[in-house]
Amino acid sequence: MSRTIGVALLGLGNVGGGVVKLLEDNAEAIEARLGARIAVRAIAVRDPDRADRVVEVDRALLSTDVDAVIQRPDVDLVCELIGGTTEAKRAMLAAIAAGKHIVTANKALLAEYGGEVFAAAERAGVDLYYEAAVCGGVPIIRVLREGLASDRVEALWGIVNGTSNYILSTMTETRRPFADILADAQRLGYAEADPTLDIGGGDAAHKLAILVGLCFGTTIDVHAIPTDGISIVEPIDLEYAQKFGYVLKPLVIARDHGEAVEARVHPALVPHHWLLADVSGAKNAVYVQSYALGGSMYYGAGAGMLPTAMSVVSDIIEIGRNIFARAAGGARPQRPRPVRARPLMPLGEVRTKYYLRFAVADQPGVLGQLMTILGANDVSIAQVVQDAKGEAPVSVVVLTHEAREGNVRAALAEIDRLAIIKAPGRVIRIAA
Amino acid sequence: MSRTIGVALLGLGNVGGGVVKLLEDNAEAIEARLGARIAVRAIAVRDPDRADRVVEVDRALLSTDVDAVIQRPDVDLVCELIGGTTEAKRAMLAAIAAGKHIVTANKALLAEYGGEVFAAAERAGVDLYYEAAVCGGVPIIRVLREGLASDRVEALWGIVNGTSNYILSTMTETRRPFADILADAQRLGYAEADPTLDIGGGDAAHKLAILVGLCFGTTIDVHAIPTDGISIVEPIDLEYAQKFGYVLKPLVIARDHGEAVEARVHPALVPHHWLLADVSGAKNAVYVQSYALGGSMYYGAGAGMLPTAMSVVSDIIEIGRNIFARAAGGARPQRPRPVRARPLMPLGEVRTKYYLRFAVADQPGVLGQLMTILGANDVSIAQVVQDAKGEAPVSVVVLTHEAREGNVRAALAEIDRLAIIKAPGRVIRIAA
Repeated sequence: MSRTIGVALLGLGNVGGGVVKLLEDNAEAIEARLGARIAVRAIAVRDPDRADRVVEVDRALLSTDVDAVIQRPDVDLVCELIGGTTEAKRAMLAAIAAGKHIVTANKALLAEYGGEVFAAAERAGVDLYYEAAVCGGVPIIRVLREGLASDRVEALWGIVNGTSNYILSTMTETRRPFADILADAQRLGYAEADPTLDIGGGDAAHKLAILVGLCFGTTIDVHAIPTDGISIVEPIDLEYAQKFGYVLKPLVIARDHGEAVEARVHPALVPHHWLLADVSGAKNAVYVQSYALGGSMYYGAGAGMLPTAMSVVSDIIEIGRNIFARAAGGARPQRPRPVRARPLMPLGEVRTKYYLRFAVADQPGVLGQLMTILGANDVSIAQVVQDAKGEAPVSVVVLTHEAREGNVRAALAEIDRLAIIKAPGRVIRIAA
Repeated sequence: MSRTIGVALLGLGNVGGGVVKLLEDNAEAIEARLGARIAVRAIAVRDPDRADRVVEVDRALLSTDVDAVIQRPDVDLVCELIGGTTEAKRAMLAAIAAGKHIVTANKALLAEYGGEVFAAAERAGVDLYYEAAVCGGVPIIRVLREGLASDRVEALWGIVNGTSNYILSTMTETRRPFADILADAQRLGYAEADPTLDIGGGDAAHKLAILVGLCFGTTIDVHAIPTDGISIVEPIDLEYAQKFGYVLKPLVIARDHGEAVEARVHPALVPHHWLLADVSGAKNAVYVQSYALGGSMYYGAGAGMLPTAMSVVSDIIEIGRNIFARAAGGARPQRPRPVRARPLMPLGEVRTKYYLRFAVADQPGVLGQLMTILGANDVSIAQVVQDAKGEAPVSVVVLTHEAREGNVRAALAEIDRLAIIKAPGRVIRIAA
């Protein structure tokens, strides 16, 4: 077994360090499975003298010259682990142009410029694998692309951002305030110093755009995906959710409606008997509803050094097999060609169930006014709870049957204008 | 797109019918993904005139001549859906010898004769895929072979027999007797007319042998796997399990101990906070513990016409991609070559926690005698409950800390000889 796959890493942060470590730790098993060695030929870094690396690497492998690293003739495959969409995109396109196969964990780049980079890879006849871009170590891309290749995905519900799930899970368990828990999460490494992309839902929207492309064979504009972050959830909502038999989870939801595709990112009330309700802490999971298989779920670590590196190295192995089979490049498409380009369903037309919370004056007739407006807007009520606490304002919580989002928003706008309303109504969607 | 993959089906029962139906229903999407059509060229059946087929097929496709079907020059790939290990094995080896790629759902054949048929496929340079053999539609084979290709599986816990899970779940919910529920399951199609292989654990042992081969790179004798069926569970055990915070589930368990491999099949008390505790009805799931990824779980329909057919057709698509990439046969090994052949750990050396139930005479000193014997055999006690009901015999339930199975069995043999013991002690292992 003298065959070798030559790999270049762009970036040696958490994931890059994990790749180096995993290639060493599991070298024997990987060689047995691939029938070849995987050798890291060079690593592009910003500062070769940085002292606090997660792994020790031979100083001679490090270079600040990204292009020199990419162009090395002993490099078959480039792992893009820089992140961001500017230099990462430039470097990836340069590597593709140089005929190198690509493995990336860069969800933002694929969500924003997937069309461009996949087209470049197809033209150049190189592989582009990205298992680590969605749900870290959970092999959801491979499952959807190959495991369910003969099936037709109808809908999916996913917990794809570990930081948001950690924060909502911990809020549910401890009832401590959001800011405290976020600070803990940052200390534990579950949240970035700037957590906006995680808790605002942007990271989840990137992953959802990739999943939608893979499942429904259409490209959607990631910026058009309706996206709410978890900061809309207050401790009192966690209490009501529990009372009604729900758990609050940060979800991505997508559904194929034929003419249009529904996709949205928001915290949601999840029925406590759903498997997703038990996906806690920083874990990720995707529940898929498909025509032939029915419901299936894929669960595991959505982030972290070794889980993410595991997906990267499994992709390297797969490309290695393709290389040896002289099959690399196009013959095994990573992305189904768009079967039919379809628009994103406007949020106003989405139908789901709703949790609505109002702060109202403690006076007779309030419920009647709320119910009348909801009814007039075709929003049918499943359950109402009015807080008995003496202090004004009083909380009224309404759970609706399935309703059109546009109707719910119209009703809320009307309700918010009432004199009895003390604060804007709070809307959280219910997973159904 | 005029390329076509020619397929022959051996057998047109539930799964074969599902394959025909799925190829029709999802034809457009499959063609888009594979870049080719999949055409069923011929179907070998016992009785071409049988009237109660699950799908309508062109009578001209049917033949009673298995070998003629296999040898057709327009057939690239043979789906073995006959079941059993005699004619199925003969037909599979004949197809391999004829240079046809193989897709099979036959767990018994692979568990018993996997070494022989995989070796034949390797020699002939044909692909042999078997996703449907384990957990029906759940893509667990692909996940382990490719998704976790860079990882090292340390242990797994699986619910891989839907019939057993349906029966234990329904017993837990309804407290109705085993025989009634089995009869229901047979009526609903969740259980075979002869349910021995399902409820006795034999079917699960076949699947476990395949999983062990894939995860640990070693072949084990399926008949040597310690196997208990679910009939050892009585309604009273379900009640005690619940009281202690457990749910009874039909498990397969495997663990890599380095020098030896642990594998066993039995109903087990599963802590209610485990995700596997929520896998109910006829559903299947496998929870995998691996070095890099940590815990991950794969859940879905383990049986049924369309879910199983989904796995078969996804395998056909994969082989089709291999054929077009001229990569078929050996270059993408389906089974890792054994890294290191290792023996099955003798059951006596297995260490786990235990639930022990004794029917004892209602007299003083009984607990003392039990505890003394357990202690003398190095079985440490976590919890003891003695039934207060006045009627003799009285139930004593003991939960142990982790102990050696050999010690537990020695203690039980001693205890069963005591005059105060009214029936042989009942042992159910606890998942840990």
